[in-house]
Amino acid sequence: MRSIDRELVGKGSTPTHVLVLLARHATDIEIAQAIATLEGRGAMVQSTHQGGQTCLVVTGLAPGMDSSGIGAMPGVEQVLPVTRPYILASRTFSAENTIVDLGGLPVGGEGLLVIAGPCAVESRAQTLTVAQAVARDGAQALRGGAYKPRTSPYSFQGLGSEGLEILQEARARTGLKIVTEAMDIDQLAEVALIADAVQIGARNMQNFPLLKAAGEIGKPVVLKRGMSATLTDWLLAAEYILDAGNPNVILCERGIRTFVDHSRNTLDLSIIPAAKAETHLPVIVDPSHATGRRALVCAMARAAIAAGADGLLIEVHGNPGEAQSDGEQAIVPSEFRTLMQELSVLAPILGRHLLPAPIAQPAPAE
Amino acid sequence: MRSIDRELVGKGSTPTHVLVLLARHATDIEIAQAIATLEGRGAMVQSTHQGGQTCLVVTGLAPGMDSSGIGAMPGVEQVLPVTRPYILASRTFSAENTIVDLGGLPVGGEGLLVIAGPCAVESRAQTLTVAQAVARDGAQALRGGAYKPRTSPYSFQGLGSEGLEILQEARARTGLKIVTEAMDIDQLAEVALIADAVQIGARNMQNFPLLKAAGEIGKPVVLKRGMSATLTDWLLAAEYILDAGNPNVILCERGIRTFVDHSRNTLDLSIIPAAKAETHLPVIVDPSHATGRRALVCAMARAAIAAGADGLLIEVHGNPGEAQSDGEQAIVPSEFRTLMQELSVLAPILGRHLLPAPIAQPAPAE
Amino acid sequence: MRSIDRELVGKGSTPTHVLVLLARHATDIEIAQAIATLEGRGAMVQSTHQGGQTCLVVTGLAPGMDSSGIGAMPGVEQVLPVTRPYILASRTFSAENTIVDLGGLPVGGEGLLVIAGPCAVESRAQTLTVAQAVARDGAQALRGGAYKPRTSPYSFQGLGSEGLEILQEARARTGLKIVTEAMDIDQLAEVALIADAVQIGARNMQNFPLLKAAGEIGKPVVLKRGMSATLTDWLLAAEYILDAGNPNVILCERGIRTFVDHSRNTLDLSIIPAAKAETHLPVIVDPSHATGRRALVCAMARAAIAAGADGLLIEVHGNPGEAQSDGEQAIVPSEFRTLMQELSVLAPILGRHLLPAPIAQPAPAE
Amino acid sequence: MRSIDRELVGKGSTPTHVLVLLARHATDIEIAQAIATLEGRGAMVQSTHQGGQTCLVVTGLAPGMDSSGIGAMPGVEQVLPVTRPYILASRTFSAENTIVDLGGLPVGGEGLLVIAGPCAVESRAQTLTVAQAVARDGAQALRGGAYKPRTSPYSFQGLGSEGLEILQEARARTGLKIVTEAMDIDQLAEVALIADAVQIGARNMQNFPLLKAAGEIGKPVVLKRGMSATLTDWLLAAEYILDAGNPNVILCERGIRTFVDHSRNTLDLSIIPAAKAETHLPVIVDPSHATGRRALVCAMARAAIAAGADGLLIEVHGNPGEAQSDGEQAIVPSEFRTLMQELSVLAPILGRHLLPAPIAQPAPAE
Repeated sequence: MRSIDRELVGKGSTPTHVLVLLARHATDIEIAQAIATLEGRGAMVQSTHQGGQTCLVVTGLAPGMDSSGIGAMPGVEQVLPVTRPYILASRTFSAENTIVDLGGLPVGGEGLLVIAGPCAVESRAQTLTVAQAVARDGAQALRGGAYKPRTSPYSFQGLGSEGLEILQEARARTGLKIVTEAMDIDQLAEVALIADAVQIGARNMQNFPLLKAAGEIGKPVVLKRGMSATLTDWLLAAEYILDAGNPNVILCERGIRTFVDHSRNTLDLSIIPAAKAETHLPVIVDPSHATGRRALVCAMARAAIAAGADGLLIEVHGNPGEAQSDGEQAIVPSEFRTLMQELSVLAPILGRHLLPAPIAQPAPAE
Repeated sequence: MRSIDRELVGKGSTPTHVLVLLARHATDIEIAQAIATLEGRGAMVQSTHQGGQTCLVVTGLAPGMDSSGIGAMPGVEQVLPVTRPYILASRTFSAENTIVDLGGLPVGGEGLLVIAGPCAVESRAQTLTVAQAVARDGAQALRGGAYKPRTSPYSFQGLGSEGLEILQEARARTGLKIVTEAMDIDQLAEVALIADAVQIGARNMQNFPLLKAAGEIGKPVVLKRGMSATLTDWLLAAEYILDAGNPNVILCERGIRTFVDHSRNTLDLSIIPAAKAETHLPVIVDPSHATGRRALVCAMARAAIAAGADGLLIEVHGNPGEAQSDGEQAIVPSEFRTLMQELSVLAPILGRHLLPAPIAQPAPAE
Repeated sequence: MRSIDRELVGKGSTPTHVLVLLARHATDIEIAQAIATLEGRGAMVQSTHQGGQTCLVVTGLAPGMDSSGIGAMPGVEQVLPVTRPYILASRTFSAENTIVDLGGLPVGGEGLLVIAGPCAVESRAQTLTVAQAVARDGAQALRGGAYKPRTSPYSFQGLGSEGLEILQEARARTGLKIVTEAMDIDQLAEVALIADAVQIGARNMQNFPLLKAAGEIGKPVVLKRGMSATLTDWLLAAEYILDAGNPNVILCERGIRTFVDHSRNTLDLSIIPAAKAETHLPVIVDPSHATGRRALVCAMARAAIAAGADGLLIEVHGNPGEAQSDGEQAIVPSEFRTLMQELSVLAPILGRHLLPAPIAQPAPAE
Repeated sequence: MRSIDRELVGKGSTPTHVLVLLARHATDIEIAQAIATLEGRGAMVQSTHQGGQTCLVVTGLAPGMDSSGIGAMPGVEQVLPVTRPYILASRTFSAENTIVDLGGLPVGGEGLLVIAGPCAVESRAQTLTVAQAVARDGAQALRGGAYKPRTSPYSFQGLGSEGLEILQEARARTGLKIVTEAMDIDQLAEVALIADAVQIGARNMQNFPLLKAAGEIGKPVVLKRGMSATLTDWLLAAEYILDAGNPNVILCERGIRTFVDHSRNTLDLSIIPAAKAETHLPVIVDPSHATGRRALVCAMARAAIAAGADGLLIEVHGNPGEAQSDGEQAIVPSEFRTLMQELSVLAPILGRHLLPAPIAQPAPAE
């Protein structure tokens, strides 16, 4: 078996994909023969595992090939036609929800994930203060950019490696998991060493080399939806990561660009049930970037959970007026506390609960 | 005092508006003098009432005019500058929420309004069946178009007057209030005679002659947001109705047109808190037209309430597969029942409750 | 034969439409029998004329009906299946371009129509001055609103009947044809009496009662594209007018609402070749409302003609800074003169020419 | 003087930028002193050259600093306040159009650039055939992706290095300049070695690390507009490249994502005059990706030139039905020939001309 030959795949506009599920009792020889037979007929075959069984992802199948013939091969249990352009991200590949392990936190099950913190890591003091506040009020993970994508080259671009060190210290002090962004392949390697999950931002949702590289790290990826991405675009971006070997993708809706002027972007909550019908991956929501206005954040956070989101990514800043980026969309710790109280009551109504907050670590001597 | 002279207003791009609140003890002579003084300086003055006090809506004030001078006039209690293009719809005009009386139902307070029913009145049997189902499950009002705006002239255009009679019968049998659409001035007169609230559809949100006419009827108006309307456009459309004398406007978000393809329109829930910060009018949500997909409706209904909506407008059809219009977005009665149960638990979390369902009328002998 | 029974049409989501072209030698009896046969099978039939032949528009044909059977009926020359939701607007109905007669001007052929003038008729002097300027520089028609759709009720709403009288005088003095807007059915009757073509604005593109009424007037209709209308929506709006009996529809692209902020709307010039492939109706372009910025108007006017537009609708104002509406998008007469000179050189490159300017009438004694 | 300290810049939402133009006779000591003075007051200063003069780009100027004081310093000729968020891309920095040297072709002057070729380099034969055809008909440069950004991981991803070799051979045989895309920093280095200009695609318009790296290559950059980018976003993306040291940026409009369905994207031609008013950089147009439909490409190409574009980027494929990507939007060589003939007549009307086609190289012996 060989990896998918990219040069030969996808010439037609509607590629024919199938998933071949092998029996649990299939022998190695049967599996090798099935692969050889499929490849012999011009298909590309990738072997993966799904629910404890070997599963072959077969792309570029010649149109004339008899799919019932595949089903009759020894060791083959079931042949599933894939009617979507994405395969590994589809419900055909996994009817069960994927539970992503984010530093020990199970994301995508009944528990709701709350990632909170500043837009950017601006200083040690600012970060630790906010981290302690959000941990105390029930967040399980800390957000905060060390590397910041900024529209202007003259805007604050993040503290870089120093920011990552601050995040590490915040984790050590609070027990919060760390979610932070990488913008290129070099940053990806550095961030993956430290973070519990790596964020790929909206502007990089179709940065395909970065997606492929994110498929090779051993940490979960939070994949933000592009500002003009359809659901299919988004799931195909996830497919790049999954196909490159990383099954731990958390989708994050953060608003699309429309004509409206009452919010910075338009939060598209209807994509939550739509995505969950198509994919087994968790879906969380960032109401801060979506609205761009502090006064709208908490209402949208509640609405996101009511719409079925698996978690939230929220900006909290101790002093939004002095934030180096996006201060106008950050809520303050007291608002965050109220929100968490509301969510703790709302979640059970929807058959959910908040994931447990970290047990604070004893602060190391300074 | 005379009505606003439209020919003279609004020459500048940023009209200067003020609200002049008169003291409760102001005499008729003082009021008349204040108006005369303002008009004498070139302003247009309209007298209205707000919280038991006389209030003058002053537009077209000459830039040089001293607004502190106005405040010194006898009988004047307060002068409020209006920084928005809308006046009567603004929070400056009324800081308190307006409670619209929809056939006895208070809309815009703590109680949540649920208007449910078919897209179109297709027949007596279909309408009565759905009406009884939604009344039984807690809806307080019935929707259903007798006059239908249809993209194609070859599509079903509604039963017209016969449809209105069916709606009347449905009200008599179930106690549900009736909300139905009017598309032109003639229909408005006919519909207003029968309905408890008249709907103005998204395609007519900027049909200004219709808005002015809707300002002269004695029934509440449900004003749907246009598919490409900003919040300001929407509130100015409401202002046309308010300015023409009808204070009972219920705003209804129903999705905007964007590039997405997972839903027919994009439900913009962030406009709920944004609108409520700007206006005292109630805001309800139509998740059916917004999503265009039955599978997304209930999640969006829950999210709308969590975002702060004052009610819902939902399509329910006994047999969506046979609906003459928009069947793919109607939920069935069993889904509606489940939704209402969810909402009855969700509402108290948010400090709200469902308005009481009608007490069924004894069915008249047939 | 009876008119289309709206109650019965269009239940299915994909109506089956056919055009039945009758032979030139078909007798009245053959025609009546063909109609009776089709109606007997449940179809709705409307008789119209196309290229000198009788043509039956058949909608709601039962799926099982054999369309080859229709072709065998006496007097039937050809049966054309219609694959679009619009019929009379489609190229199937007329492969040849429709040439609309606008007060004697042939619109939709090789000649380019230029309609120029102020956004609104503000006064007699302002209108006559601009009319004389644009007539002198080659415009063939005058635009100017007597009834103005304004986003705010406090903005100038037009001079109404007095404005129509001013436009009549401008025509008498300059020979320019008059194109002006009607916003409701009452205005439509009044405007149609005076104007050479009646404009239906973008906000009324799906005001279906108005479209039906516009189908019954004896004047051409300039139908602006709605701000969020697809090509199909637009052609179906035209279909309402055509279906109601008025074959003289001129489509006018005026920009769609998008996220951009360098222009008020986004002029969608690609709809010109796309529309012309679908429909036989003329397509003109309004670069003034599309861009909302004077500095962009002339470049977009040239581009529209290069893209294949049949004409332009341009705002020209003698003193844009003092315009009562949309002054920031009006060009001044000297810019208009330069533009007309450019177009007179550009048009022949594209196989077009400017329609002849009116021969000025002797000014009546004042 | 030091490079701009990114950590300190842009804290406020409206940074204060100025350009300090030094006199031609300014001594090195005067320049150094001016920089030291500005830095001493907290500003960041970057030295650059503009029209033969030294120019200081000053950002982060403390609000209280007296800009007239700067003008009085020895050697300072003029202080220009920058009212836009971009500086080097602005007309303030250069009122004169920048002429980018693309392998000897002057882009941005009177001559129009035509870059034509396949979406992707699929094979040697396909590429050479198309290259010869477009060279013969007057194109000056060849497009064709060796590295292809594809929405799906299962689609053809390009021939990579082998594709670059084919492009080199095509240049050797035809004299066409080569424009091809790089998607990450590694590819950028490789592509810049071979191509005459490097393309940064729409999906990477806000891939800031890539933009910075593109600022350090010695080749011009064709920067496509992102699908949801405003004009300001686009010019700030260019600013990243300019600020990193590469003054040779060619902007390329390629359509924005909207709700329309008659074209794949909406070509926004009004951005041409809007961009040219803001920036001195050349602007070209890609009508192929913008429309996604072969039938619309030539009309939009003509319209782009009429709107003031400095050139075109067009897909031409010898056999679009067999293209491995985007075949439905490629025109065939005969259509390209006709288009070039039309443009050669159209250009002089607009005061432009087509840049000269390459003089074919003698084909090397195979």
